[in-house]
Amino acid sequence: MTKKINFTDVTLRDGQQSLLATRVRTEDLLPAAEKLDKAGFWSLEVWGGATFDVCLRYLKEDPWERLRKIKEVAPNTPLEMLLRGQNLVGYRHYPDDVVEEFVKKAADNGIDVFRIFDALNDVRNMEVAISVAKEKGKTVKGVLSYTISPVHTIEYYVNVAKQLKDLGVDIISIKDQAGILSPKVAYELVKTLKDEIKLPVHLHAQTTAAMAEMSCLKAVEAGVDIIDTDVSTWSWLTAHPAAETMAYVLKEFGYQVDIDLNIIEEVAEYLKEVRKKYKKYDTAEKWPDSEVLIHQIPGGMMSNFIAQLKENDALDKLDEVKKEVARVREDLGYPPLVTPTSQIVGTQALLNVLQGGRYKVVTKEVKDYVKGLYGRPPAPIKPEIIGKIIGDEEIIQVRPADLLEPELDKCTKEAYEAGAKSPEDVLSYCLFPSVAKEFFEWREAYERGEALPPQIEELSEKQECDT
Amino acid sequence: MTKKINFTDVTLRDGQQSLLATRVRTEDLLPAAEKLDKAGFWSLEVWGGATFDVCLRYLKEDPWERLRKIKEVAPNTPLEMLLRGQNLVGYRHYPDDVVEEFVKKAADNGIDVFRIFDALNDVRNMEVAISVAKEKGKTVKGVLSYTISPVHTIEYYVNVAKQLKDLGVDIISIKDQAGILSPKVAYELVKTLKDEIKLPVHLHAQTTAAMAEMSCLKAVEAGVDIIDTDVSTWSWLTAHPAAETMAYVLKEFGYQVDIDLNIIEEVAEYLKEVRKKYKKYDTAEKWPDSEVLIHQIPGGMMSNFIAQLKENDALDKLDEVKKEVARVREDLGYPPLVTPTSQIVGTQALLNVLQGGRYKVVTKEVKDYVKGLYGRPPAPIKPEIIGKIIGDEEIIQVRPADLLEPELDKCTKEAYEAGAKSPEDVLSYCLFPSVAKEFFEWREAYERGEALPPQIEELSEKQECDT
Ligand SMILES: [Co+2]
Ligand SMILES: [Co+2]
Repeated sequence: MTKKINFTDVTLRDGQQSLLATRVRTEDLLPAAEKLDKAGFWSLEVWGGATFDVCLRYLKEDPWERLRKIKEVAPNTPLEMLLRGQNLVGYRHYPDDVVEEFVKKAADNGIDVFRIFDALNDVRNMEVAISVAKEKGKTVKGVLSYTISPVHTIEYYVNVAKQLKDLGVDIISIKDQAGILSPKVAYELVKTLKDEIKLPVHLHAQTTAAMAEMSCLKAVEAGVDIIDTDVSTWSWLTAHPAAETMAYVLKEFGYQVDIDLNIIEEVAEYLKEVRKKYKKYDTAEKWPDSEVLIHQIPGGMMSNFIAQLKENDALDKLDEVKKEVARVREDLGYPPLVTPTSQIVGTQALLNVLQGGRYKVVTKEVKDYVKGLYGRPPAPIKPEIIGKIIGDEEIIQVRPADLLEPELDKCTKEAYEAGAKSPEDVLSYCLFPSVAKEFFEWREAYERGEALPPQIEELSEKQECDT
Repeated sequence: MTKKINFTDVTLRDGQQSLLATRVRTEDLLPAAEKLDKAGFWSLEVWGGATFDVCLRYLKEDPWERLRKIKEVAPNTPLEMLLRGQNLVGYRHYPDDVVEEFVKKAADNGIDVFRIFDALNDVRNMEVAISVAKEKGKTVKGVLSYTISPVHTIEYYVNVAKQLKDLGVDIISIKDQAGILSPKVAYELVKTLKDEIKLPVHLHAQTTAAMAEMSCLKAVEAGVDIIDTDVSTWSWLTAHPAAETMAYVLKEFGYQVDIDLNIIEEVAEYLKEVRKKYKKYDTAEKWPDSEVLIHQIPGGMMSNFIAQLKENDALDKLDEVKKEVARVREDLGYPPLVTPTSQIVGTQALLNVLQGGRYKVVTKEVKDYVKGLYGRPPAPIKPEIIGKIIGDEEIIQVRPADLLEPELDKCTKEAYEAGAKSPEDVLSYCLFPSVAKEFFEWREAYERGEALPPQIEELSEKQECDT
């Protein structure tokens, strides 16, 4: 029997987020969405991640309207979003009432598949979003955030997957955000998950280190059910494998792939032209970040170190900082080097080297992390490190969001005062108050004919986000 | 027992030819060669292909001097060159005396491994070069030029490999110049060659369509002995897989890879800087040419069609031309769409569409091809096509070079008149008379202090070549 391999197209969310700083306008996405809807994908990832923030902040677009417009032109294929667990599409934990309302409204406006993750794999940060999405009758991909460390073993991921299954997710989803999942581990991880969890398995891998195609192929050999791809002209580099290439390769091996390559080709041609308009954001290097495989330090983090050390006239300490990253990461129980923990670890490592002593100066973020406010670290933190960093302060044992007061009533009131016109506007405000307020003000001025949409040429600096 | 996978570094020849139009100067290559020499590669491909022509034509460098200088800084690792069989490093068949002298001098100046190919896999075009290289005690990789067609079956390649083995090659080498070798075929081809030919097998694959990493991995699983890689910062896109990534992936699977990644990392950092100097040649698209997998027409050929059709105000005929390419290719016995046969097929396909009738106008190149002057087509050409194209003219049955008079004496005399100073200069002249003459003249002026080396900013248009 021929096994069918399902494809999720992530071009319009993660593809543009990875390659074009998430700056692509809805009007440029819609013609692609309309065609992709007819191409046979299992789902189209079109929302979430950084798109929400960037719509409001830089494009002066209503992210909810984008979702509805996409749903309108792409009614046949399930629409998917990436959701950062209790962080939703923002950068801090939101209280449960906001999370509940957000997931409900996302479902009501068109999301059919929720891909829900937490950088620390603390399922307590995912459980509310999962349960609301399930209550709304939607499909949930419960994510394993992949990283490499002595504690991130196959058994570790199987354990997280079991917790996700208990929470009712439909699919176990591996998220290799840094592009460091080797083909060998991809094979073993998928094989073990298929054997032990008995749920469909999905793989999302970035091509950053030029491994993703190989990892997808080995994952397929191990039984993976869904892989993520981009249309070729918005694929590769820091994004994902090309749909056309993976479809060709897998069909050659005899797998069933129901993607219409003629449609994809049309979309590829179209997106190639669109890409030119966003040239100033198209800054990904033309070579793989293979260094991350040698030192486990992603290229973006490394360039940041070099810049900061130069500023401090201490470039000779780069090797020391690299080693310190590994030590800090170990101290903190091996958080993955992805947003936000990459910033937390990186900044502290720099301070430890530049301030002439480890943890002489400690950032607020590291303190909060050690207190458990981001969630449970992958491995326990040693008592002496805890003492060094937070002294006698207490570590929370509860779910971080349990400490948060409900916010929805308060921010609803404030939102309408700030210019919100709908429950969706209210959510935009609850997540990003000042950005949303500015957007509402711009919108009113625009409707009065007193403001123009920002020109793409005016859109400002590249934003670093999880991809 | 752990199987060792050998790596050949092709950065300094095919890497720069694929990504930087072969324009990188010797002085920029030497520091990399010196370090790569200590990194544990099986060989370093540093010469041949387009480098010879470009040295003389654009860089005003003596290609022989480049080779000697590289040998000087990299004395430990075997140096490899790509040789186009009877075409040597040029674009026409040279008579045997020139071929013999060229191969001897290449060996004398430092080449240890000859990778010898013919685009049509006509081993008669390779036999003289192979036998001279073997007489000189050198290692020969006998190449299978990979393409896709109904006649290019596994059996076809095994048959060519047997002929190469009979000619005494040391290694069977698969050359996937267009990046169209799928992982499935890579596996089957390598497996069959290993079983039936009993020689080491080498794979050279371009990443153009984002398949090469997967194909290398499957080739390794099938028993391949050597793969070709670039240092990461000159890898990927239209070049080859990154050494660092492939080393990491294969080591994870338990293969023995004796590459020193710390040295590679230093070279990667160095080459990243060098690459900036050649920015104007750094024009490869940032996405894979996946279209070639759908239509078998390489991206470069397609852009050429679009340009030519636009010029003739006939862009609406693009689909017709695409189909005509397939028909012409079939008519001509399935030559591969690589230099020079891609140009031969492409031009004729355009003419067939634009001149209002198939073969109403026939190029000299197609006539020569049909007459057998390029070698034996992969499949026999149908009599009616032969009649249409060359009428009653005769098809040669002998080896094409058998028709060529010796040239060495005549061109030696001319070469010294033109300013040659050494037997190596003579060969430069025999291959590229006018280009070499201009170079000799420049060199004399330079030595008199009356000319400067061309600035890289002045180096002219990108050259299309086999890679
Ligand atoms: Co991603
Ligand atoms: Co090549």
